[in-house]
Amino acid sequence: MQSNLTYPDWIAVDWGTSNLRVWAMTAEGEILAENASDQGMSTVAPDEFEVTLLSHIAPWLGNPNTPVIACGMVGARQGWVEAPYRAVPTTPVGDIFQVPCKDSRISMHILPGLKQERSVDVMRGEETQIAGYLTDNPEFDGILCLPGTHTKWAHISAGEVVSFQTFMTGELFDLLSHQSVLRHSIGEGGGLDQEAFAGAIGDTISRPEAVATQLFKIRAVDLVHGAHASVSRARLSGILLGLELAAARPYWLGQSVALIGPPALNALYETALLAQGVAPTLHDMENITLKGLTAAYKSLGQ
Amino acid sequence: MQSNLTYPDWIAVDWGTSNLRVWAMTAEGEILAENASDQGMSTVAPDEFEVTLLSHIAPWLGNPNTPVIACGMVGARQGWVEAPYRAVPTTPVGDIFQVPCKDSRISMHILPGLKQERSVDVMRGEETQIAGYLTDNPEFDGILCLPGTHTKWAHISAGEVVSFQTFMTGELFDLLSHQSVLRHSIGEGGGLDQEAFAGAIGDTISRPEAVATQLFKIRAVDLVHGAHASVSRARLSGILLGLELAAARPYWLGQSVALIGPPALNALYETALLAQGVAPTLHDMENITLKGLTAAYKSLGQ
Repeated sequence: MQSNLTYPDWIAVDWGTSNLRVWAMTAEGEILAENASDQGMSTVAPDEFEVTLLSHIAPWLGNPNTPVIACGMVGARQGWVEAPYRAVPTTPVGDIFQVPCKDSRISMHILPGLKQERSVDVMRGEETQIAGYLTDNPEFDGILCLPGTHTKWAHISAGEVVSFQTFMTGELFDLLSHQSVLRHSIGEGGGLDQEAFAGAIGDTISRPEAVATQLFKIRAVDLVHGAHASVSRARLSGILLGLELAAARPYWLGQSVALIGPPALNALYETALLAQGVAPTLHDMENITLKGLTAAYKSLGQ
Repeated sequence: MQSNLTYPDWIAVDWGTSNLRVWAMTAEGEILAENASDQGMSTVAPDEFEVTLLSHIAPWLGNPNTPVIACGMVGARQGWVEAPYRAVPTTPVGDIFQVPCKDSRISMHILPGLKQERSVDVMRGEETQIAGYLTDNPEFDGILCLPGTHTKWAHISAGEVVSFQTFMTGELFDLLSHQSVLRHSIGEGGGLDQEAFAGAIGDTISRPEAVATQLFKIRAVDLVHGAHASVSRARLSGILLGLELAAARPYWLGQSVALIGPPALNALYETALLAQGVAPTLHDMENITLKGLTAAYKSLGQ
């Protein structure tokens, strides 16, 4: 088998809090091999990042100093080394951080995250997705929304991230649906009642301050009248997304919005935005990080 | 020792989700003995409530049919038996629910919770605290606020609960401070920066829709500028309490407000309300449930 192997020109690494993905790449951006693991940043001791990475990419290392480009929480303070945030407005990728390694077979790089000084905010990982989107849409001028655990809204113009804002919507949904008293009404899995979802979004956008009492009402309505789990889940989702849209209004009102997220989340955000008179475009996030890492590799000029 | 024991005239039981408290009482309301356990409602199988209760009160049972009066989640659907909610407006305690028992030494009763049909809401346990407060303050006309995991605001007039509203503020604080990304900035225990607390309340009352992004900003500010845990914790507490006060405004604006909660929570709510120009009275909740149970016992006419 070894004789058939073409050694990669470089290696792409997406190393988040809970997952690690690696790709063996040609200089032209072709994928030769790939691998995934649950050895996310949070599971790795500070002095074991290099050994952990090597255990996943060793078969690909045929040449000295193979460039490795990584993004994500691996560059956080609790990660391998801290790759300091770059301040917006700026291009999504730049100041690529070189990491000293013991093993001379790799030349290790980490992409820094972005920070915003005015209305303080941070991102780490999403800047690479934004770079990936801009690879295919270099002229994009408008708003990128990246739905997820910590949803990001970013204003993009002339290839730069002008400003951005983070919402904990996904993490709030996970905590409330699995661990709060609401879990008794929401259950696991199952559908989302579209009418209840739309109603909750409208209610919350028009009266966002009522959120903490509207949340408990999901449970109370179920206890007093009985409610299907798909209705309770839709209320929770709609309340939290409505709260986000109420605050993110300057980002979407009258703007061109592109959604980059998992298909199910994209669909939820599309429904919510359409009800506000905004028609977003939808983009699957599959491999968008790899596109961003590829753009970063090319910018190294190797 | 046995020869010195006066058997109680009745037994009071506060049986919540996670704790059980029992008191041996005289007809005049004197405490002969008391006991506490972590065998809360959520730890007891449906057919084991009677046995569990007896294991805590058996030494007190000298006479047949000793009345036992219980309140709390023991009367919920997942509890011993469901004591149906009573609809407001109504007195806090009434329609005491008799529970059939196998053991003839006890005559078991559970106090129903309250429900509200218009703006659907429920309480179970707090109605007994309200009854306890009204025992000492029978002429009270105004707003009772019971801060806790699920804070209740109740409008009291002429001895009745007129309306009430529940906020998940305490549960949101616990989930976000212990299990969300904010835990890295908040840590465990420690103080609360008063200036940051007041600032967060003011920010949130004036712009409640920004909550989901203000929450993430606690983490971002710590990452970019560094923040003391007591400041981050105060921001979280102030944001959530500010959101509650924004929606509960009809309850406190220009009203006479009495706070009934643990001293530390009472103090937080007092600070927040004083900043809005409302001077609440503070009442320790210690034994207020027992006073409510005593009022219920007397209402049985035994």
